[in-house]
Amino acid sequence: MQIIITGGGGFLGQRLARALLKSDLPFDQLLLVDILKPNNPGGDPRVRCVEADVYEEIVSKDLVNSDTSLLFHLAAVVSSHAEKEFDIGWRVNLDITRRLLEACRHAHKGIRFVFTSSLAVYGGDLPPVVNDSTAVTPRSSYGTQKAMGELLVNDYSRKGFVDGIVLRLPTICVRPGRPNLAASSFVSSIIREPMHGEEAICPVSPDLALFLSSPDTAIDNLMHAATLETRKLAWRTINLPGIRVTVGEMLDALKRNTDEETLARVKFIPDDSINRIVSSWPGQIDNTRALQLGFARDNNFDNFILQHISDNKLKS
Amino acid sequence: MQIIITGGGGFLGQRLARALLKSDLPFDQLLLVDILKPNNPGGDPRVRCVEADVYEEIVSKDLVNSDTSLLFHLAAVVSSHAEKEFDIGWRVNLDITRRLLEACRHAHKGIRFVFTSSLAVYGGDLPPVVNDSTAVTPRSSYGTQKAMGELLVNDYSRKGFVDGIVLRLPTICVRPGRPNLAASSFVSSIIREPMHGEEAICPVSPDLALFLSSPDTAIDNLMHAATLETRKLAWRTINLPGIRVTVGEMLDALKRNTDEETLARVKFIPDDSINRIVSSWPGQIDNTRALQLGFARDNNFDNFILQHISDNKLKS
Repeated sequence: MQIIITGGGGFLGQRLARALLKSDLPFDQLLLVDILKPNNPGGDPRVRCVEADVYEEIVSKDLVNSDTSLLFHLAAVVSSHAEKEFDIGWRVNLDITRRLLEACRHAHKGIRFVFTSSLAVYGGDLPPVVNDSTAVTPRSSYGTQKAMGELLVNDYSRKGFVDGIVLRLPTICVRPGRPNLAASSFVSSIIREPMHGEEAICPVSPDLALFLSSPDTAIDNLMHAATLETRKLAWRTINLPGIRVTVGEMLDALKRNTDEETLARVKFIPDDSINRIVSSWPGQIDNTRALQLGFARDNNFDNFILQHISDNKLKS
Repeated sequence: MQIIITGGGGFLGQRLARALLKSDLPFDQLLLVDILKPNNPGGDPRVRCVEADVYEEIVSKDLVNSDTSLLFHLAAVVSSHAEKEFDIGWRVNLDITRRLLEACRHAHKGIRFVFTSSLAVYGGDLPPVVNDSTAVTPRSSYGTQKAMGELLVNDYSRKGFVDGIVLRLPTICVRPGRPNLAASSFVSSIIREPMHGEEAICPVSPDLALFLSSPDTAIDNLMHAATLETRKLAWRTINLPGIRVTVGEMLDALKRNTDEETLARVKFIPDDSINRIVSSWPGQIDNTRALQLGFARDNNFDNFILQHISDNKLKS
């Protein structure tokens, strides 16, 4: 049995790989594929790392085979990047998803296909609380591409070509590493950089509400999706649980768990283009259905900071 | 100035062409393109008829040019056909839409792009009254492809590449001609065939509620979309007005406007696969927004029958 992670070199991909290697899930091979060769976390002999552009049809056909039982499709071009480079966004976020689904369909029926989507599928005038019945009206190409990928996975699942699950991830905080081209990049930066002694720019108002998941909870939920009973799911798209926090509340927690000096490293410099994208996302989502299906939720934002301290062996 | 109609040889395309030729809209060329060479309705010298597969990239690039001001994209593979021939459905209903949008984007900015979608984008457990904020959860590949096309047109419009409008058409009744591979084909057959002295099979229960538009009203609404002010539309997808009628009420109207003998030509033979698709569509849609935007609605089903009588110069 083979498990595949696209975007296997990324932050979530590497973390998910470690979770899979520690789990009871049976598999002979864990294939991590990414545009740059992924690391083998822990050097486990079951891991195979492949540097490839999954857009090449031959590649997606070569990766997925009769042994594949589970595929996590995490690879994506992030929001601001897809907004700036329109053609690349479509190629990566839509075409690769479609090619992978086709590869699964023609390998063998019923591969569990876990696709990560985003609350960027929402946008515009939203009800105060968004739920699974709220229409998606994305205000970014990234959100559009993810919304189209969701529809694809649902239709391929309905036809029995894959056994798909779409997880709409809340914004993940605190991401490790450096800022990226996601419009939401600041959400981690305003916590991470100050804790590492660097300045960070906050491009939005302290009043902006965000809908967040910690990395540990996101990984728990990806793992849950690997084995979730899907036969009873009429619709395969699930808004993963998150918590609503304003930027101001995040910074209060930062001060509470570090000090005044750390907080002072955050500078507010408004950026309209980022604000326009991020403020079009919902600040609150009704997660009743996801919680009933056994997905997990964080309880408070202080734990997000403590998780980052623990992951990075920082002094608290 | 050039106007293009894809699917220009079809029933709606031909009827729309006649409406355009009679209208005050200024244009030098009306290009009708279809997989089989379209007729030139009325032999107007402004009409150019092209037999082409718009999937061929060269074709869509060749059709759309710097003179193009308006494009009606009506070409599609219908619901049961897309369900049976999965790959053809994607090729026609998604890929061609994308190629035409790309051709418009690279010809010049701001071409009015009118895309016909369908209430087949809805499905599953729907609220009693669907509105523009109801999530699309299609239960057919056709509905999935149309929902993805809607998202494409919205994103290309948001980026300013086209000036798009998406019209979700109610089921059109009475379509002229012969039955086709649409799951909704019976909706016209149970009225049309008996009026022409033939038997018709009704595959669903008399209680099934349908959401219908007459051909004249559908054409009026396509014409309205040609010149509608779109700058104030936050979202380009519009549920066109229709009326809710049950199959039983349709047959009552048939009897009322013809006779007992005509009605007796309708036989009920249940077909689960058709029933599954059609009963997943909404029977009632809140059209407040469309009516505010100036789109038209039929008033009663008797008029649908009288329209068919008049179109076909039948005796009533």
